[in-house]
Amino acid sequence: MAMDGYRGFLGLLVSALLVGFLSVLFTLIWVLHYREGLGWDGTALEFNWHPVLVVTGFVFIQGIAIIVYRLPWTWKCSKLLMKSIHAGLHAVAAILAIISLVAVFDFHNAKNIPNMYSLHSWVGLTVVILYILQLLLGVSIFLLPWAPLSLRALVMPIHVYSGLLIFGTVIATVLMGVTEKLFFALNSSGYSTSPPEGIFTNTLGLLIVVFGALIFWIVTRPQWQRPKEPNSIFLQPNGGAQEGVEGSAINFSNVDKSDSELNNEAAARKRNFIVDEAGQRSTM
Amino acid sequence: MAMDGYRGFLGLLVSALLVGFLSVLFTLIWVLHYREGLGWDGTALEFNWHPVLVVTGFVFIQGIAIIVYRLPWTWKCSKLLMKSIHAGLHAVAAILAIISLVAVFDFHNAKNIPNMYSLHSWVGLTVVILYILQLLLGVSIFLLPWAPLSLRALVMPIHVYSGLLIFGTVIATVLMGVTEKLFFALNSSGYSTSPPEGIFTNTLGLLIVVFGALIFWIVTRPQWQRPKEPNSIFLQPNGGAQEGVEGSAINFSNVDKSDSELNNEAAARKRNFIVDEAGQRSTM
Repeated sequence: MAMDGYRGFLGLLVSALLVGFLSVLFTLIWVLHYREGLGWDGTALEFNWHPVLVVTGFVFIQGIAIIVYRLPWTWKCSKLLMKSIHAGLHAVAAILAIISLVAVFDFHNAKNIPNMYSLHSWVGLTVVILYILQLLLGVSIFLLPWAPLSLRALVMPIHVYSGLLIFGTVIATVLMGVTEKLFFALNSSGYSTSPPEGIFTNTLGLLIVVFGALIFWIVTRPQWQRPKEPNSIFLQPNGGAQEGVEGSAINFSNVDKSDSELNNEAAARKRNFIVDEAGQRSTM
Repeated sequence: MAMDGYRGFLGLLVSALLVGFLSVLFTLIWVLHYREGLGWDGTALEFNWHPVLVVTGFVFIQGIAIIVYRLPWTWKCSKLLMKSIHAGLHAVAAILAIISLVAVFDFHNAKNIPNMYSLHSWVGLTVVILYILQLLLGVSIFLLPWAPLSLRALVMPIHVYSGLLIFGTVIATVLMGVTEKLFFALNSSGYSTSPPEGIFTNTLGLLIVVFGALIFWIVTRPQWQRPKEPNSIFLQPNGGAQEGVEGSAINFSNVDKSDSELNNEAAARKRNFIVDEAGQRSTM
C-alpha cells in the first residue's frame, strides 16, 4: 500500500473507531444519565441492557469484524488466524445480541408487555436469526477445512452480500429502536419539545449512521483489500485454475476485467507484496 | 448474457418490481383504508401524502433508477440515453421527495406541531439534501459533456458509494417513519395489541426491506453489468489508456484482477456482445 493510501486508510479507520466508541459512550450516558441505569431485575434497568449490548456488540463489534481483513499490519498474519478473528468477533457480537434480546423479553414478561408487535421487533428478531445463520454457514464453509474450494467460490459473493445487508439492517433496526424508546420514554408530546434527552439520543442515532457509512466505505475500497495468499491457487467452478477466492472479500466500484490496472495503488501494493513477501510468486 | 443468467436476472427483476409495486399498494391501502385518506388541506389528509410520495418516489422509483443500466434489452441503447433515464428517474424521485416534505411541514404548521425534533426528521431531511446534491453532481459530471474523463474516473466510485448509502438510509428512514406513525396513530398501548393496522403496516415495512435487498443484490452482481462501449477508451488518472470508466457502475464480490475470468457467465456475455454488436472490438 502506497504511503498516501495508507494514511487515508488510517484516517478512516481512526474515524470509524472514534465514531463507534462515541456511539457506545452515548448509549451508556443515555441509559445511565437520562434513563434509569443498568440492572438485571425485570425492570427498566434490565431493559436498558438492550440498547447497550446492541450498540456495543451488534453495531460496533460487528463493524470491526467486517473490516478486520483490511488492516494492513495483519497482512503478514496467516489467513486462518484472520478468519478466526473475523469469526470470533462476529461470535462475540452474536452472543451480545442474544443477551440483548433476553433482556428485553425478560423485561416485557415481567411487566406483562406483549412481545413482538412492533416493526422494530419483527426486523430485529429476523436479523438476529439471519446473523446466527450467516455465522454458522461462514464457519462451516470458510473457517473449517472441509468445504471444497468450488463451494467457497460459489458462496463467497453471497456471504459478502448478506453480511453487509445484515449490518445495514441492524443499523436501520437500531434507528427504529431509538425512535420507539424516545416515544415511550418522553411520550410524543415530550419528544416534540426537543428536550436534551431527545437531542442527545438523536445525535446517537446520527453517530451510528456515520459509523455504518465509514465501515461501508472502508470495506468496499478495492485498494484496501488484503493481498492474495502467494500459494492460494483455487479451482474455478468449471475446473480451471483460479487465484483469489480467499484473498479478497469485496470489491465495489466501477470495475471490470481491467479494473485493477485502473487502480494503480492496488497494483503498486500488490507488486510490493509480491516482491517483499512472496518471492517465487508468478507475475499476473 | 447466457440464458441461465438472463433468467436469473429476470426473476430477480420481476421480484423487485412486484415487491416495489406491493409496497406502493400497501402504502395506499394504509392511508386510504386504515387512515384518513388523501387531501391537501393542512389536516392528516395532507400528511398522508408524505408516506405515499416517499414510498412511490424515494423508494420505488429511486430503486428502479439504480438498476436501470442492468436491463439487458437497454444495452443496445446509447449510453447517453441510459444516463438520461437514470438521471430523469432520480429527478422524479427527488421532486416527489420534496413534495412529501412540503406535505409534512404544511401539516405540522397548520396544526402547530413542532418540526424537526425526531431522529426520523433529522436523518430524513439530511438524506433528501444529500440526494439532491448527488443528483446535481451526477448530472454535472457524468451527463453533461464538460467534465474531463479523469474527473469522471475519480468521482465514479464515490457516486456509486453515496448512491447506495443514500438508498439504504432512505429505507432506514422509512422504517423509522412507519414506527413513529404507528405510535402516533395507534398510541403505544394500541400498537402493542397487534391490531390489523399494526400487522399490515409492519408487513409494509418488511416489503420495503425486501425491495431494498433485491435492488442491492441486482446492482452488485458483476455479471449483470452493462457491457463496455466498444469505443469507450478512457484515460487513467496517470495518463495511461483505460477502458471501462463509464461502461460499468458497480462490482461487488470477491474480485481481483482475475475476477472476470472467475465469472464465466460475465465472460460469455461479453464475448457474445463482442461478436454480436461490436464487430471490430479488440479482444481483451
